[in-house]
Amino acid sequence: MPNVFLALAHRPEEFRAFFAYHDALMDKQGGLSKAEREMIVVATSGANHCQYCVVAHGAILRVRAKDPRVADQVAVNYRKADITPRQKAMLDFAMKVALESATVGDADFAELREHGFSDEDNWDIAAIAAFFALSNRMANVTSMRPNDEFYLMGRVAKEK
Amino acid sequence: MPNVFLALAHRPEEFRAFFAYHDALMDKQGGLSKAEREMIVVATSGANHCQYCVVAHGAILRVRAKDPRVADQVAVNYRKADITPRQKAMLDFAMKVALESATVGDADFAELREHGFSDEDNWDIAAIAAFFALSNRMANVTSMRPNDEFYLMGRVAKEK
Amino acid sequence: MPNVFLALAHRPEEFRAFFAYHDALMDKQGGLSKAEREMIVVATSGANHCQYCVVAHGAILRVRAKDPRVADQVAVNYRKADITPRQKAMLDFAMKVALESATVGDADFAELREHGFSDEDNWDIAAIAAFFALSNRMANVTSMRPNDEFYLMGRVAKEK
Amino acid sequence: MPNVFLALAHRPEEFRAFFAYHDALMDKQGGLSKAEREMIVVATSGANHCQYCVVAHGAILRVRAKDPRVADQVAVNYRKADITPRQKAMLDFAMKVALESATVGDADFAELREHGFSDEDNWDIAAIAAFFALSNRMANVTSMRPNDEFYLMGRVAKEK
Amino acid sequence: MPNVFLALAHRPEEFRAFFAYHDALMDKQGGLSKAEREMIVVATSGANHCQYCVVAHGAILRVRAKDPRVADQVAVNYRKADITPRQKAMLDFAMKVALESATVGDADFAELREHGFSDEDNWDIAAIAAFFALSNRMANVTSMRPNDEFYLMGRVAKEK
Amino acid sequence: MPNVFLALAHRPEEFRAFFAYHDALMDKQGGLSKAEREMIVVATSGANHCQYCVVAHGAILRVRAKDPRVADQVAVNYRKADITPRQKAMLDFAMKVALESATVGDADFAELREHGFSDEDNWDIAAIAAFFALSNRMANVTSMRPNDEFYLMGRVAKEK
Repeated sequence: MPNVFLALAHRPEEFRAFFAYHDALMDKQGGLSKAEREMIVVATSGANHCQYCVVAHGAILRVRAKDPRVADQVAVNYRKADITPRQKAMLDFAMKVALESATVGDADFAELREHGFSDEDNWDIAAIAAFFALSNRMANVTSMRPNDEFYLMGRVAKEK
Repeated sequence: MPNVFLALAHRPEEFRAFFAYHDALMDKQGGLSKAEREMIVVATSGANHCQYCVVAHGAILRVRAKDPRVADQVAVNYRKADITPRQKAMLDFAMKVALESATVGDADFAELREHGFSDEDNWDIAAIAAFFALSNRMANVTSMRPNDEFYLMGRVAKEK
Repeated sequence: MPNVFLALAHRPEEFRAFFAYHDALMDKQGGLSKAEREMIVVATSGANHCQYCVVAHGAILRVRAKDPRVADQVAVNYRKADITPRQKAMLDFAMKVALESATVGDADFAELREHGFSDEDNWDIAAIAAFFALSNRMANVTSMRPNDEFYLMGRVAKEK
Repeated sequence: MPNVFLALAHRPEEFRAFFAYHDALMDKQGGLSKAEREMIVVATSGANHCQYCVVAHGAILRVRAKDPRVADQVAVNYRKADITPRQKAMLDFAMKVALESATVGDADFAELREHGFSDEDNWDIAAIAAFFALSNRMANVTSMRPNDEFYLMGRVAKEK
Repeated sequence: MPNVFLALAHRPEEFRAFFAYHDALMDKQGGLSKAEREMIVVATSGANHCQYCVVAHGAILRVRAKDPRVADQVAVNYRKADITPRQKAMLDFAMKVALESATVGDADFAELREHGFSDEDNWDIAAIAAFFALSNRMANVTSMRPNDEFYLMGRVAKEK
Repeated sequence: MPNVFLALAHRPEEFRAFFAYHDALMDKQGGLSKAEREMIVVATSGANHCQYCVVAHGAILRVRAKDPRVADQVAVNYRKADITPRQKAMLDFAMKVALESATVGDADFAELREHGFSDEDNWDIAAIAAFFALSNRMANVTSMRPNDEFYLMGRVAKEK
């Protein structure tokens, strides 16, 4: 059981809302793959220096992307990661939402359209970055620890 | 009906989770008054340059605090607002959660304890700042507009 | 009598120079309307977290623009305010002068020319942003308080 | 004739107010020596990357302090300059006024009192930092150039 | 062969100086263990968003510390890592050298002394942070890639 | 003897590596003149607030460029210095390497190519900025002082 469940358990209403929100964003269908959704989490959580989210969602990203290296790359500097130009545009926008949302404007949406993202995709990107703005802050304040197994998950072939 | 309802309505699952989370934090009992909860919203939303949240929650703060001026003060610079030292300590912590949560540590909790805040109060402060980190980002990305009536609400005696 | 008069009164020479400078910039004729001059004050004072100037000049802006909402919008995030593209370009430049004047260069003036601003207009925008860089700092250091009547001025029809 | 005179000459009212303000702050008697007033100018103008003010007031500082090296030191990093602890406290405060005036508070004034500064001295420090916040911005926007003779003034013995 | 060797190979003089400097700092005896030296590299390289150094030196840190998790923790937020208070003080100083060396002063050295660091240890901490300021910049500019084997090294028991 | 020699002397291995690296970058032939190499040092050292490097390399820059004013200009704000557009592009890139190397990318290299810089020139610019990132940090931590003669060197005709 991921430690985030334990951390939120003494506040049942917040617990239920948190996971309902999380699942609505991370498990839905749409223009973004599940691996791409996790990339957004890892990149913005790296920018927010959130140990729990980088390690736990880095594990999920490795599993979803079937790639043992992409999570470490995206956590440190997505601009240098082995991802597509479309994914870099997605993360450019996600990082702007995470770090300076007041400056988001029409030029950003035009750029996203050029990479084939729909309005619903843009909402997804923004909403994931925004939801983990919340999540990163709670994990940092509570010094939430990743479960030990997350560190290695998805790194060796047999675990995929 | 506040415009935030309209903005989220086309995503019913996110809508329900958002308001469940909001109500769990803003309507609960505890060591923080309802006006103090709104102060946290207004101060951190000012720091995030979120027009919707500063104007809409500024209105609620004026009503809850029965004070026509506190919201404008807190939105611009809570350090110079007509609030108590305890409330300034609350906002010092909320702003740290909003802007640099990775550096939150034991010294912050010790400072909060000196002002009489309990562990549950601290969670509330952090969770409100974190929830509006999410909310501010969505409002900025969607250019959410405050309803016209929020601008004046709570500013003149008969409206209190 | 606005509190800024009282705050500066014990230094008569500075008092006279301050108001002479202020009036030379804010009361002059030129390509910028009086409401636009106040917009520059409110936007840059918001960025400098100056309670006195946001509240007092917010009041004047509401009166000059005959608009009860523009001041609150511009104070929080001028990019999302109900103003013209030309006014946004004006405020882009004013904010650059306020926050990172060392990087102002030819590209900024070319942008301003495209929106129809003359060299004298550009000087006005820069000079207002620069003068309130001074004013905001003095108000912050002296914890200058806005007069109570500024909070409501220009918000209700009969006051316009 | 310093180039700042030429730059402002086409705006006679602003010209008169600027120099009246300047002289009220820089030529007055008080707890700060004239060299110390120039130190504030050089340190804060360095932080604002204002070529005119660092070079022109660096010259005046060398002359006033009868020290050929102090200006270059203070312009780059006053913390490492050959100045007294009292002067470092003065510049700590001036830099806070220049760069983050919204956070100035009682603790700053307590620190200044410990170094023997009076309330009037504190006003002088803040007002000089604030006035050159204005001046630096105008010089940066107009690309004001220092006169050639300022570069060498006060550097060699016979010029003192 | 680590990719950094290849990247620098076409500049033999720089290559020799780089590795001579590196070895002088990382292989020397002294108050810091080899694992602690690598912690400094990983923490400051994380702050500089250097993919090569975080991944390659993260591997070495895991091996040297015989700890499969410490590198990921330190790379994201050393304040929340499973390290000693003395190591946190070491990294507080290293990060200050990496990010704002102009403000390093006596108070920092007093803090280090309280944790038992000698003057030579302090030089080592600063010099490692400074050397990787160089290294991180070259790796970022050249988009240097970590060798694939670094990602997994030190993560599983048999590799220790 | 420049003080940097004394400061590093008690660490002979680091001393040798430091000067070998320095000479490999600063004394080599290539597309950058020796004066241009020193410009990079002065501009980035100004940004890092390194007194030793601004004063010492400012002296060398004056001598190499046979220009008594360029060093003071570049140290404060290279954008306003009397240098060529090609040199400003060189310093734009050097400053990006110094201050935010994680964002360096293809667009930067395209811009440099337009100004006629070769791949080897780009390496030189980056490597000089990176080497002085190291040097500035060591000078700041050790409070290294410039030799007195550097302040005046290259300022008066007979010294050129």
